[in-house]
Amino acid sequence: MVAQTEHTVGGSVQLAPANKVLKYTFDSLPLQRGGQLGPVTLAYETWGTLNAEGDNAILITHALTGNAHAHDVERPDDAKAAWWNLLIGPGRAFDTSRYFVICSNIIGSCYGSTGPSSINPSTGRSYGMRFPFVTIRDMVRAQRILLEHLGVRQLAMVAGGSIGGQQALEWGVAYPEMVQKVIVVAATAALTAQAIAFSEVGRQAIMADPRWQNGDYVPGQGPGAGLAIARMLAMITYQSEEAMEMRFARYPARSNSIPTPARSADLGGRFDVENYLYYQGESLIRRFDANSYLYISRAMDLYDVSEGYPSLEAALRRLRGKSLFIGIRSDFLFPAARVSRLAEQVRALGGDSTYVELDSPHGHDAFLKEWQQMTNALQS
Amino acid sequence: MVAQTEHTVGGSVQLAPANKVLKYTFDSLPLQRGGQLGPVTLAYETWGTLNAEGDNAILITHALTGNAHAHDVERPDDAKAAWWNLLIGPGRAFDTSRYFVICSNIIGSCYGSTGPSSINPSTGRSYGMRFPFVTIRDMVRAQRILLEHLGVRQLAMVAGGSIGGQQALEWGVAYPEMVQKVIVVAATAALTAQAIAFSEVGRQAIMADPRWQNGDYVPGQGPGAGLAIARMLAMITYQSEEAMEMRFARYPARSNSIPTPARSADLGGRFDVENYLYYQGESLIRRFDANSYLYISRAMDLYDVSEGYPSLEAALRRLRGKSLFIGIRSDFLFPAARVSRLAEQVRALGGDSTYVELDSPHGHDAFLKEWQQMTNALQS
Repeated sequence: MVAQTEHTVGGSVQLAPANKVLKYTFDSLPLQRGGQLGPVTLAYETWGTLNAEGDNAILITHALTGNAHAHDVERPDDAKAAWWNLLIGPGRAFDTSRYFVICSNIIGSCYGSTGPSSINPSTGRSYGMRFPFVTIRDMVRAQRILLEHLGVRQLAMVAGGSIGGQQALEWGVAYPEMVQKVIVVAATAALTAQAIAFSEVGRQAIMADPRWQNGDYVPGQGPGAGLAIARMLAMITYQSEEAMEMRFARYPARSNSIPTPARSADLGGRFDVENYLYYQGESLIRRFDANSYLYISRAMDLYDVSEGYPSLEAALRRLRGKSLFIGIRSDFLFPAARVSRLAEQVRALGGDSTYVELDSPHGHDAFLKEWQQMTNALQS
Repeated sequence: MVAQTEHTVGGSVQLAPANKVLKYTFDSLPLQRGGQLGPVTLAYETWGTLNAEGDNAILITHALTGNAHAHDVERPDDAKAAWWNLLIGPGRAFDTSRYFVICSNIIGSCYGSTGPSSINPSTGRSYGMRFPFVTIRDMVRAQRILLEHLGVRQLAMVAGGSIGGQQALEWGVAYPEMVQKVIVVAATAALTAQAIAFSEVGRQAIMADPRWQNGDYVPGQGPGAGLAIARMLAMITYQSEEAMEMRFARYPARSNSIPTPARSADLGGRFDVENYLYYQGESLIRRFDANSYLYISRAMDLYDVSEGYPSLEAALRRLRGKSLFIGIRSDFLFPAARVSRLAEQVRALGGDSTYVELDSPHGHDAFLKEWQQMTNALQS
């Protein structure tokens, strides 16, 4: 599945692997909350080779503003080149010499899969807020259709963190016959009230931005200030008091060249932590769609693995294979105690469940930073 | 100092105590960061009687959106009638039968003291963002001028929580000869990076609101959406995951009649916690000035008790009398461990310092809720 590109090295022409984003389009997806979406395109990347039995596949599921680029074959050792780069590859935790690894952009997103910024073929205009409400279950159903198209019959593993962890859990519950091992990182059965509250503050900042225009903004002229504010807040919740204190403490910013979301003057100086957050806000504006942010963050809030089942226990009892839950000591968005409790509940119901905790100060984002601990944990 | 009002009870005319806000105006206050403010008015309330020696006074210092109304003589048993109502009164922790208790609105605020919404007499217009930058030290200096005016020579206690705790600490360090006991509740020597970060997200929401107009909004037509969003976020940080889970969990809202700050439609329903936060946002808009919010929250961020001294130790060594530090187990804005460490530092420097921790799930706001624990702690 890997395309080849010509690179000139030392005067001779060599073939090097190149990253390639593929697309698959299908007609229609019935949605959990009613209605349907169609046509549906999924952008995806794959690494390694599917065997004849179609049972050596691993599905990697991404987080809120993530994409299908979980691994970079051109720069496989650069942690910043892809979001789980160092966990994927020959001999790595997700071993591409043995497994066929797939990551697809979720529906509702803006990295090639169908989302609010896509053109609605029936109107010729972007969906905007007319995009139907999509849930974690819908995202997973769409992934399943893609896997069938690729010839995957069994998933050796499904793994993801945060909203990707919600998807992994949903996979195990929705399609237990198809999944041998579920790996849920920094995610729980449902968000806490506090996490929902943070999430809604960010969305209100987006929707209060007059450039949001009820979602009908021109691409590139969207609610940048609102999205940047939402991102600033989210970045705090992805870290921890401990990590921010180590990195920023009360240091002043070394420069104030990064504009604030409000384009406001600094009040009595600028702290380094503020400068960092402005930078994170500006970065997200350039790469992410505000409406996608609204839809996906809301899907995260509304996710409850027990929805449609008589009880949480009834949902968790459906998990058939192994399940590995990875919590993070300093995560306050998905507290480790709650991830651990979920693993215990599964075990109490007779499931083959393991809990591992990352001893990291980096908060929720540790699953995107602690490569050695993640590699060790994934072998549990 | 207490005015009398006629109440008709059972047909006969009786005299009942009435609340009265007093004002004191002085010419000019030199400011820590340069320049001066003047004239300066302080709005204040007092309870009890100052003795001839002028040494039985207690100063109560309020938090970010607080005011001078710490106690309500008309409804002394109604916890909601004044912000520390149940701690003040005859026989209570701040015993008005023995002490003369004073609470003044801080400069920069909008409850009668000089702040950004005041008219600048030299221009005839509201200061807006032309109001000079005021610090915790400036607030305390203004309070000292008021106390001199009232004939107070010694403070038996200075007590406050949050930014009020910063003021109490500052009192002990700035005027050690005047203070017998400092009571610092849910406050530390300086904010953490995380707390500054949350604070700045709120301010950006205010300043990104087009109705902010660089601070020159017409009263009543200010940045309501931005201020409501800032308040929503602040309310999360004043509580705790634990308390929000107990109260809200994932319950749906019983009604959706409260408008969101963005006046947006609900996305896939409304949670009770969201409805609560919208309500809190709407309430603050009606009672608080957005520019005051910017100035006071920023003073809170920038406060560092060691500023102007060779070291933190040098500043803390100035504390002369007793000091009582009260932390809250579940406070994540001013973590209990940091309050406790501050008390230890003072003790290690030879100070007469005590630490008490409130065992409350209510987070930072516990100092405004846990009346019995607060009463017990204040007797330490």
